[in-house]
Amino acid sequence: MPNFKLTLSYEGTRYKGWQRQGNTAGTIQGKLETILSRMLDQSVELAASGRTDAGVHARIQVCSFRAETDRSPRELLEELRRCLPEDIGAVALEYAPPRFHARLSCRGKTYLYRVWNSESPNVFTRRFQYRLPDALDLDAMGRAAELLCGEHDFAAFCSLKNSKKSTRRRLRSIRLEREGDELLLYFTGDGFLYNMVRILTGTLLEVGMGRRAPEEIPGLLLSGDRSRAGFTAPACGLTLWDLEY
Amino acid sequence: MPNFKLTLSYEGTRYKGWQRQGNTAGTIQGKLETILSRMLDQSVELAASGRTDAGVHARIQVCSFRAETDRSPRELLEELRRCLPEDIGAVALEYAPPRFHARLSCRGKTYLYRVWNSESPNVFTRRFQYRLPDALDLDAMGRAAELLCGEHDFAAFCSLKNSKKSTRRRLRSIRLEREGDELLLYFTGDGFLYNMVRILTGTLLEVGMGRRAPEEIPGLLLSGDRSRAGFTAPACGLTLWDLEY
Repeated sequence: MPNFKLTLSYEGTRYKGWQRQGNTAGTIQGKLETILSRMLDQSVELAASGRTDAGVHARIQVCSFRAETDRSPRELLEELRRCLPEDIGAVALEYAPPRFHARLSCRGKTYLYRVWNSESPNVFTRRFQYRLPDALDLDAMGRAAELLCGEHDFAAFCSLKNSKKSTRRRLRSIRLEREGDELLLYFTGDGFLYNMVRILTGTLLEVGMGRRAPEEIPGLLLSGDRSRAGFTAPACGLTLWDLEY
Repeated sequence: MPNFKLTLSYEGTRYKGWQRQGNTAGTIQGKLETILSRMLDQSVELAASGRTDAGVHARIQVCSFRAETDRSPRELLEELRRCLPEDIGAVALEYAPPRFHARLSCRGKTYLYRVWNSESPNVFTRRFQYRLPDALDLDAMGRAAELLCGEHDFAAFCSLKNSKKSTRRRLRSIRLEREGDELLLYFTGDGFLYNMVRILTGTLLEVGMGRRAPEEIPGLLLSGDRSRAGFTAPACGLTLWDLEY
């Protein structure tokens, strides 16, 4: 049965996140599986690089699925584009090697968190940013970001406790960029825990606002205590930006 | 009575354009006048640099109004921001010279028309672009654009016939820029007729698709015949970009 790699982008605003829940309504996975199953006249199950939370966007999301069909990826892509709502875009569809799996084959991810750092609203990008007008000390944020990078137990930066699974992750880099009134935070790592990027962002923003010192970071990591880390930055500011395979 | 200059930006998607119509519902002017009149406890009438059509956006729109108030522009701006819906942004509010009038004092305008020129949709910018996957000959479009610039009777590029008013305008420049899959068309002039930028865009895109030759432009201008010009490009792609005072 041929294996397919589907590359998507989506605006997460009106969805309950990637992962199908019970009935398929309101999730991106559910929406896509419904359309693909109808198109291919068989039950299609999608694997994605990972879940995205309710309201989180994806510039690039990669999925894989197997289906019995003689139709070419090009034909399927064109039909899929005709069926998708306008907030889900099908970027590419191609044959994948038999062992390719969107989640298991994924070797790294980059998330972008966008902060609109101005009192004057931006009506054009408001769906993709978190608006925070407070003055931000980027130097302090940069020092805190350095202390967060590397391999650590990120239990303090994870919303769900699951004592069986390891919360160790390698955070390869955090890049902070200011572009006019916008602050861009890029997080690259091998993998991320539930809400990890949003809690990292909330913690860095608290450092930027002077509410905590960069020097607290090592102790915070060691504590493994979620209640000591910063707030969970809103979902709307987060975009799954890039994937490595 | 103090004169105020209000600078706005808005996403036009869910509005019937700038200009108030009968009841105030659904227009940007109506929405703003309702809020300002309530805030200032008096009837406020706004003059804008010009109308924008239903669905057209503004990166910058300037309005003026007179109101009797002791409150500072800063205070008023903050209250206005709290009252506005999230698709209308109050960028600035300041005192204006007594003779300042947003429409009469405006000396030039730039509109941007954005075309998403790819088969693969862009879910993030779709509200601000017209999607046209066809191959476009930018050289031909550039030649046609040059022939359109200058002072002409633009009757062929105007949707409403009003025999009393002059349809002569000076189109100072058309700038075409390609940025990846996006084509940006900037139009700068002293003033524009109803639907003029959208018909200019439609005509240029027909040239780009090879459906008409740049050499037709001078005859088209001379004819004054709307039916000989190109299609009216969709409102969603158009943004009032900049204003000169």
